[in-house]
Amino acid sequence: MYIPTFQDMLDAHERIKPHIHRTPVLTSSYFNELTGAELFFKCENFQKAGAFKVRGASNAVFGLSDEDAAKGVCTHSSGNHALSLSYAAGRRGIPCNVVMPRTAPEAKKAAVRGYGGIITECDPSTTSREEVFAKVQAETGGDFVHPYNDPRVIAGQGTCSREFMEQVDGLDLMVAPIGGGGMISGTCLTLSHIAPEVKIIASEPEQADDAYRSFKAGHIIADDAPQTIADGLKVPLKERTWHFVSNHVSDILTASEDEIIAAMKLTWQRMKLVMEPSCAVPLATILKNKEMFAGKRVGVIVTGGNVDLDMLPWMLN
Amino acid sequence: MYIPTFQDMLDAHERIKPHIHRTPVLTSSYFNELTGAELFFKCENFQKAGAFKVRGASNAVFGLSDEDAAKGVCTHSSGNHALSLSYAAGRRGIPCNVVMPRTAPEAKKAAVRGYGGIITECDPSTTSREEVFAKVQAETGGDFVHPYNDPRVIAGQGTCSREFMEQVDGLDLMVAPIGGGGMISGTCLTLSHIAPEVKIIASEPEQADDAYRSFKAGHIIADDAPQTIADGLKVPLKERTWHFVSNHVSDILTASEDEIIAAMKLTWQRMKLVMEPSCAVPLATILKNKEMFAGKRVGVIVTGGNVDLDMLPWMLN
Repeated sequence: MYIPTFQDMLDAHERIKPHIHRTPVLTSSYFNELTGAELFFKCENFQKAGAFKVRGASNAVFGLSDEDAAKGVCTHSSGNHALSLSYAAGRRGIPCNVVMPRTAPEAKKAAVRGYGGIITECDPSTTSREEVFAKVQAETGGDFVHPYNDPRVIAGQGTCSREFMEQVDGLDLMVAPIGGGGMISGTCLTLSHIAPEVKIIASEPEQADDAYRSFKAGHIIADDAPQTIADGLKVPLKERTWHFVSNHVSDILTASEDEIIAAMKLTWQRMKLVMEPSCAVPLATILKNKEMFAGKRVGVIVTGGNVDLDMLPWMLN
Repeated sequence: MYIPTFQDMLDAHERIKPHIHRTPVLTSSYFNELTGAELFFKCENFQKAGAFKVRGASNAVFGLSDEDAAKGVCTHSSGNHALSLSYAAGRRGIPCNVVMPRTAPEAKKAAVRGYGGIITECDPSTTSREEVFAKVQAETGGDFVHPYNDPRVIAGQGTCSREFMEQVDGLDLMVAPIGGGGMISGTCLTLSHIAPEVKIIASEPEQADDAYRSFKAGHIIADDAPQTIADGLKVPLKERTWHFVSNHVSDILTASEDEIIAAMKLTWQRMKLVMEPSCAVPLATILKNKEMFAGKRVGVIVTGGNVDLDMLPWMLN
C-alpha cells in the first residue's frame, strides 16, 4: 500500500496551483466571543467547483501521462468529488465518467454535466454502484480516481493545510470534518511535517460516527448506510485514510443533527458564508466542547459550499 | 445646506478605521464568463453589523464631542442603519434610541437589542413614525443621525469607494444600489475627486424606481410606499443625496423583482455569499444590460448580508 509522502504534497501543490484558488482565511469576532477561542476559517467554499475536493482531483488529473490521460478518468460519487473531477478533467480536455445513483438531486447532476462530466446512473446501493462502475471503467479504460483512498487525492488535499499555515501563525489546533477521511489525511500528512505541534481534531456527525468508533476500537468500522444531513460524511474510512487517522489525529468529536443545523445557520447569519451541512460539523463540535478550545488559536477548514438552496435543512422541520 | 467635502471623507476614514473592517474584494470566473465583463465585488456583507451602513453611522457617533455624545444618538430605521448606529453607539458606550415600526421582523429587533439599541415602536406609517420619533428625540436630547441625508453619513459611506480604488486598478464603471442614495452619494463624493473617469451607475428595483424617475425628470420624485423585495431601497432621495445623484451619476438602471431574486440566488449558489435582496440589484441590472458592461472592469458594491434565512424570497413563491 503506497502512502503519500510530504514530497508528494509539495509536488501536488506545484501541479495544481494554476487550477485552484488560494482561498482566503476569515475571522469572526462574534464566534470568538461565543467560544472564547480565536477561530480562523479557511474558506474552501470559495474554492473552484465549490469545495476542497478540487485539490485532490486536479492533482490526479494533471499528474497523468499524456497517454493515460487520453483515456480519461472515472469515479463514483454523488457529491463534490464528482463535480471536482469533472472540473479538472474539463480543464485538461479529457473525458470524465461518473457513476451516480439515479436518486441523486437533479441539481447535482446538472452541475456535473455543466463541467462536462458524463453520468451513468446506478441504483442507490453499493452492489449496483460497484457493478455499474466496473462496467464503465472496463468500457472506457479511464483512470479510477477514488474520492479519498487514493494517494494522489490525499496529497492534493494536503495542500490546503500548507496554505493555511502560511496564512496564519501559531495555530494550536486544526479542526476538519471527517467522512472517508481524505481531507483529514491530507491535513495529517502536511502538519506532521511542518507543524507537528498542532493538534488535529476530526469532527463527525453522531449519526455517522463510524470514524469515532473506529478510532476508539483501533480498527476500521464501516457502517452500511448511515443517515445524516451532512451528506458528504456518510462514507467509511479506508486503509490509507485509516493510516493517517490512527497515527496523527488527536481526537474525534461528534455533534447531533440539530447541533449541525444550528451551527450551519449561525454561520450563514453571522459570517454571511454559504457553507454546506458537512462543513458546519467542526463548528458544531467546537460550540459543544468550548472548554477544549478556549484560549486557543484554532484553524477550521470550511470544506465546501455546494448546497441545495431550495432544500435548506432549517426549512424542512 | 452643508454638502460633505472630500476632506470630510478623509477625516471620516481616519475616525472609523478602528471600528470597521477593510472588506475584501472577490471575483468570480463564472460571472465574468456570463457577462463578458471583469467584475469585482466589494463585500460589505462581511462588514461589521453586516452592512456598509456602519461606516456612516460610526463616523457620526465618533465625531460627536464628549458633551454631545453623553446624550446619545437616535434615529428611525427598520433596517441596517438601526443595527449600525446601535453597534457604533455601543462601541462608544453611549445610548442609541431607535424608532422602528411594530411590524418590523422580530429578528431585526432582536439584532438591534443585541447591539444595545433601545427600541421605541411606532405604527407603520410616516405620520406615526415622525410623531413618535419627535417625542423620543425631545425626551432624550440625542443627536439625530439620519439614515442617509446626513453629511457625516455620506462622508462615511464614501470611505468604501476609497478602499475599493486602493484594492482594484483601472475600473471603468462602479455600480451600487440606490434607495435613499447614501452609498451612491458617498461613492460620487470620493470618485469625483480621486477617479473622475470612473462612471457611476445606480441600480434600482423597477417597483421602487423613484430615483430613476427623479433622474429623468430633473427633480426629486418621492413615492409614498413602494413595495419591493429589496427592502433597503424603498426610501426616497433627499436634498443632499439628490445633489450628488444629479451631478455625478451617469445612469440609473432598473430590474424586476424576478430578476433581483434570480441574481440573488445565483450569487449565493456561485459565489457562496449570503447577500440581501437589495444588493442583488446591481448584478441583476448588469445581467440585463450586458452590452453596457462587456469588456469593462466593473466594481460592484455588495452592500449587505442581513437577510431572514427563514424567509428566503425564492421559497415564498
